[in-house]
Amino acid sequence: MILATLDLLRGSGLAGAGINPIVEASGAPKGSVYHFFPAGKNQLVTAALKEAERVVGEGFRNIFARSAPLSQKVRTLFSATATRIDASAFTKGCPVAAVTLDIDDESKELRAVCRGVFATWCEIIAAGLDEVPVAQRRDAAQLIVAALEGALILARATATKDPLLQTGALLANMLALAAARESDRMGRPRQARERRRRERRGSRS
Amino acid sequence: MILATLDLLRGSGLAGAGINPIVEASGAPKGSVYHFFPAGKNQLVTAALKEAERVVGEGFRNIFARSAPLSQKVRTLFSATATRIDASAFTKGCPVAAVTLDIDDESKELRAVCRGVFATWCEIIAAGLDEVPVAQRRDAAQLIVAALEGALILARATATKDPLLQTGALLANMLALAAARESDRMGRPRQARERRRRERRGSRS
Repeated sequence: MILATLDLLRGSGLAGAGINPIVEASGAPKGSVYHFFPAGKNQLVTAALKEAERVVGEGFRNIFARSAPLSQKVRTLFSATATRIDASAFTKGCPVAAVTLDIDDESKELRAVCRGVFATWCEIIAAGLDEVPVAQRRDAAQLIVAALEGALILARATATKDPLLQTGALLANMLALAAARESDRMGRPRQARERRRRERRGSRS
Repeated sequence: MILATLDLLRGSGLAGAGINPIVEASGAPKGSVYHFFPAGKNQLVTAALKEAERVVGEGFRNIFARSAPLSQKVRTLFSATATRIDASAFTKGCPVAAVTLDIDDESKELRAVCRGVFATWCEIIAAGLDEVPVAQRRDAAQLIVAALEGALILARATATKDPLLQTGALLANMLALAAARESDRMGRPRQARERRRRERRGSRS
């Protein structure tokens, strides 16, 4: 029932995840929805979003915890996402984004759930940005998640992988360039210190 | 009626823009919806998205057609968007993104409309990226739109302007850095050519 809900959310957000379509897609009797989720649709949607947090987060960890250059990790994230949305014929995207944009007065308790999922994903990515200075990892991870979510929307609108692949490639290059410049900037004083130390040592010998 | 639809789409996508809420919000008699939009809801939503294409596009043009550094334009885009979503208490975002993520079998004709709006917006932004090499303007504009749409989602989920302001600032810096390196790279051979020309001229005199 949770997986059926998740699938409907990925397809058309809260608009598509009514109790009736969920019951139909899951094959479970209608009464069982209220048995397992007595608070109704929002409770079921929360469970589905938590499942997405776990599964998608695992995918992010697989990419960002590996030992690889930053640009390669970013490119892999976007191309893996492109392959996934292509497999759904561009009908299924991120369930958390879809719910976030559908939240109204009746579903406003879901906002905190969506916020929590995005925070988890950003943390997982930030932890794998070894080449980025620690103080900038959170913002860099947030930019990666934002660009990914936005490119997913453009991919669905165009029904092509292009926006994901192009955005991923450009972002990967730009992040690598910015990280290289930062390490250059931080490396230079250290190199200068080391040169001075060598020179002092040389003058003493 | 179009503006009421647009407002509902910005709030909760297709989920919130049923004929009844539209009639209620616009104050128009129900019959008039079918009078002006005989094809029903999708036709009305199309008109609302076209209105967003025009109005939001005008805002983008105001920012990107002006004579200002690239990083300032990008920062202005994100901060203006942050101010706007803040004014709605983080309840209203981009209607085109919201519709794109809600498209199902009954509304699939809206996909082409959303694709067209995003293409228009990307073109407007690309035309103002003077500092980016021509061949890369389209991809850079696409990255800006993707990051903006994604950051809007994060802003709605967190109910703060932070994701927009932070993403805008980082993206602005990175784009300026990449553009400076490109112009550096393209400038260097030209400078070398000019130096050789001066040297030749010098040797002849």
